[in-house]
Amino acid sequence: MRVLILAANGVEDLELYYPYLRLLEEGVDVDVAAPEKGVIKCKYGYQFKVDLSINDVKPEEYDGLILPGGKAPERIRIYAKTIEIVKHFSNTGKPIGAICHGPQVLISAGIIKGRRVTCYIGIRDDVIVAGGKYEDKEVVVDGNIVTSRNPFDLPYFMREFIKLLKKT
Amino acid sequence: MRVLILAANGVEDLELYYPYLRLLEEGVDVDVAAPEKGVIKCKYGYQFKVDLSINDVKPEEYDGLILPGGKAPERIRIYAKTIEIVKHFSNTGKPIGAICHGPQVLISAGIIKGRRVTCYIGIRDDVIVAGGKYEDKEVVVDGNIVTSRNPFDLPYFMREFIKLLKKT
Repeated sequence: MRVLILAANGVEDLELYYPYLRLLEEGVDVDVAAPEKGVIKCKYGYQFKVDLSINDVKPEEYDGLILPGGKAPERIRIYAKTIEIVKHFSNTGKPIGAICHGPQVLISAGIIKGRRVTCYIGIRDDVIVAGGKYEDKEVVVDGNIVTSRNPFDLPYFMREFIKLLKKT
Repeated sequence: MRVLILAANGVEDLELYYPYLRLLEEGVDVDVAAPEKGVIKCKYGYQFKVDLSINDVKPEEYDGLILPGGKAPERIRIYAKTIEIVKHFSNTGKPIGAICHGPQVLISAGIIKGRRVTCYIGIRDDVIVAGGKYEDKEVVVDGNIVTSRNPFDLPYFMREFIKLLKKT
């Protein structure tokens, strides 16, 4: 079982590291991709050596996708390849987890309309304008999409994401 | 089920947050204590609102103890109450997890002699001088003591700690 995390400079440290470490604990392989291969610097100063560039991602090799928050979503949503990756997970019904600003990428991929979702409160209106049914809850699961609001929701976010992943 | 984490200013952010969030994910209650009640500042800048001061801890109310690393262990090991808490967990055989610099507190409590342990490499010699049997492994379990070396060992550290906790 293999999960893809899409990150970039400015990613919220815990929202990258908690899912990464948690999936390893679960025995799941994890690849982290960013716009360029190399080391990214997280919001609070943690560094992370990414495995591959977003351009080199083969989405069909993964069973799930995680989109952490911070400044990363605005940096990755501008690439056509990012959108292609997210659409692959959406079209195949594989689990997608997006936390905090992560749902910005779901908006760009046009997959949020009519879906129950949560997010960081500062982008709530964008989610609503995009047709998402916003809920202020620690975690919202609608089909294959798991969303949460902030790092303190990580326990509930990963509990639901792992539950979905094990069903696939 | 309830676990106690002992922290202080300068605690390694992930070594505090990963166990804290992970135990919540598992449905375990967690209290974090520090020398003083209030907000502590972690090494990379995360803040954490602690639940109680170390002086107010009643160790018999907890099923397990976690000692994260960073600069916290040197700041908490100097208090008699810290040593009393650690000895309670040692004497009762309840799980003790110490990661990175965390084993410094085990040294102060005098409970490391003859035990297989690991730790951050910079305090390896202190562990050996204190009679610990040092091993360079991601996680070492000897009876009720679980030790690891650094934040990248967190998945294996928490996997073993939770396993022990569920046996108690």
